[in-house]
Amino acid sequence: MSLLAQRTGGLVGSVIDSSTSVLQQQSHDVIRFAVGSPAHEAIPTGIFDDLAPKLLTPDAFDYAATEGDPRLREALLDLLAGTPDATDPKRLTITAGGMQGLDLFGKLFIDRGDLVVIESPTYTNGSATALSYGAELLEVPTDGDGMIVDELESAVDRTGRVPKAIYVIPTFQNPSGTTMSLERRLRLIELARNWNSMIIDDDPYSLLRFAGQEIPSIRSLADGDPLVFAVRTFSKIIAPGLRVGWVDADPGLQQLLINAKQAMDTCTNLPGQRLIAGFLEGGFIDDHLERQRRRYRERKLTMQRALSDHFAGQAAWTDPDGGFFLWVRLPGIDTQALFPAALAEGVAYIPGPAFSPTGQFTDALRLCFASTTPERIGEGVARLRRAVDHG
Amino acid sequence: MSLLAQRTGGLVGSVIDSSTSVLQQQSHDVIRFAVGSPAHEAIPTGIFDDLAPKLLTPDAFDYAATEGDPRLREALLDLLAGTPDATDPKRLTITAGGMQGLDLFGKLFIDRGDLVVIESPTYTNGSATALSYGAELLEVPTDGDGMIVDELESAVDRTGRVPKAIYVIPTFQNPSGTTMSLERRLRLIELARNWNSMIIDDDPYSLLRFAGQEIPSIRSLADGDPLVFAVRTFSKIIAPGLRVGWVDADPGLQQLLINAKQAMDTCTNLPGQRLIAGFLEGGFIDDHLERQRRRYRERKLTMQRALSDHFAGQAAWTDPDGGFFLWVRLPGIDTQALFPAALAEGVAYIPGPAFSPTGQFTDALRLCFASTTPERIGEGVARLRRAVDHG
Repeated sequence: MSLLAQRTGGLVGSVIDSSTSVLQQQSHDVIRFAVGSPAHEAIPTGIFDDLAPKLLTPDAFDYAATEGDPRLREALLDLLAGTPDATDPKRLTITAGGMQGLDLFGKLFIDRGDLVVIESPTYTNGSATALSYGAELLEVPTDGDGMIVDELESAVDRTGRVPKAIYVIPTFQNPSGTTMSLERRLRLIELARNWNSMIIDDDPYSLLRFAGQEIPSIRSLADGDPLVFAVRTFSKIIAPGLRVGWVDADPGLQQLLINAKQAMDTCTNLPGQRLIAGFLEGGFIDDHLERQRRRYRERKLTMQRALSDHFAGQAAWTDPDGGFFLWVRLPGIDTQALFPAALAEGVAYIPGPAFSPTGQFTDALRLCFASTTPERIGEGVARLRRAVDHG
Repeated sequence: MSLLAQRTGGLVGSVIDSSTSVLQQQSHDVIRFAVGSPAHEAIPTGIFDDLAPKLLTPDAFDYAATEGDPRLREALLDLLAGTPDATDPKRLTITAGGMQGLDLFGKLFIDRGDLVVIESPTYTNGSATALSYGAELLEVPTDGDGMIVDELESAVDRTGRVPKAIYVIPTFQNPSGTTMSLERRLRLIELARNWNSMIIDDDPYSLLRFAGQEIPSIRSLADGDPLVFAVRTFSKIIAPGLRVGWVDADPGLQQLLINAKQAMDTCTNLPGQRLIAGFLEGGFIDDHLERQRRRYRERKLTMQRALSDHFAGQAAWTDPDGGFFLWVRLPGIDTQALFPAALAEGVAYIPGPAFSPTGQFTDALRLCFASTTPERIGEGVARLRRAVDHG
């Protein structure tokens, strides 16, 4: 079984998975800071209900085009047209969420033994995908401005090799919530060009900015450079259960992406594509995003206030300008050991080591502020405090 | 790009894909014998419409458990309980259609250079998945009783190696419509045990039997042998656009399947899982399947009659007891060369070479009888006749 385990990226990511499973067996009273989901009250089910009879006609249950339903592709191109991520049909492939974008990248580009750079901490389901294609991972530290690009350069130099790919979540990173500075983005592109490395620009959150100034995406800064493979998703801005995302990549890759996706899942589920297309065509997205930004801003501030109330001087946490997550350091506390006590108190989070293939960040944890109401956020943090005190 | 092309299974399968694309650009008057979809009138949208408001609550748009939504898992276990494919929760993983079951198999088991046996002809999107993991394919001929297992044995002997896996669609095969005999199934299991090869038992159609006697699945004949990896789907019995299927495999693989799937698409789309769960819970499936069997039996007979009317003595075709497809041989005709003329006449099919990685079956074509009304089937075959006469 150990060879099989290696093929599935070892057990990396399984901490996230088992925490989720644990949660599903818990009472409804557990306050769920663990899973990175949008608030349930943010899911536009009312609009979906209204649209469904018109959208879910028999043809919506047939196979879709592998590159995506034309209706969704058109609505998405319109959505992006007004943004720096405006793009072209030949660059666009609809995927089963952002995760499949990462899997497609691995299928096309990663060979056994290839060096793949990741942020530390990172989204380990993404790095597990690279592992599943036989990548060797190189963790590069991050700070409040994202991946420390100077350290990237020296870490790569020490290997004596060049990376096949550099995997980054530049904006409101998962798990840290931090955003890579413009200067570092530009330097990262420069290094990638020198090394002829691909950049996987995984950006699920940037439309959920609720503070600070927008920073251009790596995709837009690189201006069509084939080295940038951009992975996007509707999971965080509309709903994760629909499993609809997209890849924006060099037009020369489109037929290969179609071939690869055809051998993965044939096509992305069509009812989900049609619901999103209808939502976009109906012009609901702007108000929807504006509401989410206000909602998540309030929740972040509420969580930070609660952390100040309960952990002042004993913990440090990030201050994201958008997205879903706070990254909390509790010096001297083993957050994996703490987890059962926290669950017993009725609060769940993801322990820090789940975000590092080498199990770093033993004193850290990720809190999702997006999916819990402000009223419950304060109570959740109080429970975390009790777990630390009595755990 | 050629290395990338190799990683995506070359252009194998692209004939299927481009035919589909071609079709999508054609007028609505083209009679579509090409795509293997259920009839649009077979999609239970009325029931879905009734169920949707109750099923598509906000939690149905959140992430699902990677192994599948508990509600669907339970309903599916109930559905299978009365059949020879009755199974156990530890053996069951919900997938994004049958295709993802094949991809999961490849991720877990296929290493570069592994020998994978396929039927000839076969479903080349399945063999392309094996290629995408670096498999070397060995095509074994089939006849009216499925894969010729004696030829399997001698073909494998000639390689001087043993196969890592044997990929079969034993019942109402795609594209031939034929069914592997009980005797051959048992002999196949015996050979696989001798070689310690896995069998991929891909069976999307067996619940759509409209004639003849049921033959036990390879899965049930092997009685829990870990060498059998069973791939199943709701695509043909309910709707392909939902992208929901399942894998039935050794319990020791379940955690690895979860890890692998997590790094592919996180989970299967949840609204689709809930719609199917509601459909099964509501007890609609038995009547639904009975109606489909009657429908497809009539359509098969209609298509065979039309072929007799137009091609008697000049063509041969299979006589399936279920499923979707007739496999037609037109001696002396190059069916790829014929395709543009057929499309110009207003009828589409898949040329035979699309079902062989080595491009065999140049005089064959696959006709799907399931998705076209009887009235139009006769006209479609008449158009095919005109294409042959004037093409």
